[in-house]
Amino acid sequence: MNIVAPEILVHQLGWRYATKQFDAHRKISAKEWAALEEALVLTPSSFGLQPWKFIVVNDTAIREKLLAASWGQKQIVDASHLVVFAIKKNLAEKEIEDYVKRIVEVRGGSTEALSGFRDMMVGSIVRGRDATARETWAAHQVYIALGNFLTCTALLAIDACPMEGIDPAKYDEILGLEKLGLTTVVVAAAGHRAASDKHSQHKKVRFLKEHVVLTL
Amino acid sequence: MNIVAPEILVHQLGWRYATKQFDAHRKISAKEWAALEEALVLTPSSFGLQPWKFIVVNDTAIREKLLAASWGQKQIVDASHLVVFAIKKNLAEKEIEDYVKRIVEVRGGSTEALSGFRDMMVGSIVRGRDATARETWAAHQVYIALGNFLTCTALLAIDACPMEGIDPAKYDEILGLEKLGLTTVVVAAAGHRAASDKHSQHKKVRFLKEHVVLTL
Repeated sequence: MNIVAPEILVHQLGWRYATKQFDAHRKISAKEWAALEEALVLTPSSFGLQPWKFIVVNDTAIREKLLAASWGQKQIVDASHLVVFAIKKNLAEKEIEDYVKRIVEVRGGSTEALSGFRDMMVGSIVRGRDATARETWAAHQVYIALGNFLTCTALLAIDACPMEGIDPAKYDEILGLEKLGLTTVVVAAAGHRAASDKHSQHKKVRFLKEHVVLTL
Repeated sequence: MNIVAPEILVHQLGWRYATKQFDAHRKISAKEWAALEEALVLTPSSFGLQPWKFIVVNDTAIREKLLAASWGQKQIVDASHLVVFAIKKNLAEKEIEDYVKRIVEVRGGSTEALSGFRDMMVGSIVRGRDATARETWAAHQVYIALGNFLTCTALLAIDACPMEGIDPAKYDEILGLEKLGLTTVVVAAAGHRAASDKHSQHKKVRFLKEHVVLTL
């Protein structure tokens, strides 16, 4: 049995849109936000490695600084919540070890028993790729988190706006990410649409299914 | 009001896992699959450009060929449905024009009225990036679709397995994607877990929320 009816799912994905104007007075409730953070944490990733950090910016002064690094797009300051999707730079053996330790913490067993899995991940992610390829791989994973987040917000009837039009280097500087070994990839603002946002009335534009889905 | 309760959302994301063994006899219903295809079509993308094609492989002979290009991972043949997430290679002005035409088709108005938007997209995507950067950008978008798909399947209580461990070049060859101007990025198998899949019993491993979410 479906937990959510298929038609509800499709309806909510049709309801959502890249919100241009948020109602600055309507906040996402603490309960809803806790679920969205949990959803981010639960995002799938390759090997389960979670090469990311989600930075939730509530501080209005920081938001103002980010606004200047976002082509003045007002969603940055008006949205109830703002998430910066960052990745770990230069993923190394340490991160793999941390992950293996976490597996043992959650499931029991020993790190020795996982040495094959560990070596496989080191071979694939750390030794098998240069720094650029590692960041490309990590960026792919964080976009899964973005997709998950956008679908989750829609299902909670919360509006969101994914934003690539930002200056990642300035974000890193403002948020102090470099010293944390992180770098900004993409941003999502979330909250509730303003009644005045005419974009909410526009018909959604998608290519026809027969142009996008090829069945073999 | 939330369309889906926050606790249901979190529960389903906890329920899902990268399914290792599918029950080859349990199929996703036509109604469910239609909703999942619609969900793919509705995936958000930067500018709404949808630089992708979703290839649904039902043909068993093709699936057998893909198995050989997927390190023999049996999900490729056992899953009810298999989706190959492909991107448009070398996105050019033509694709921007097609999109602008589609906007006019859906919303009315004229392509002339959208010339500023058109020029902005051409500047950002086509002129502002080389072929590699364009593919990187398109790959990011298709990972949003993957994230959306994995969350949607979980909410329908359908199992799925995202798969990066494939040979994209061989996939392109087997599926004839090159002549369509497409290239394979990632794959997802979907269906229902086999009772014998011990991985479904393993506790989900995620870093603690305080390690993954940073609130400023």
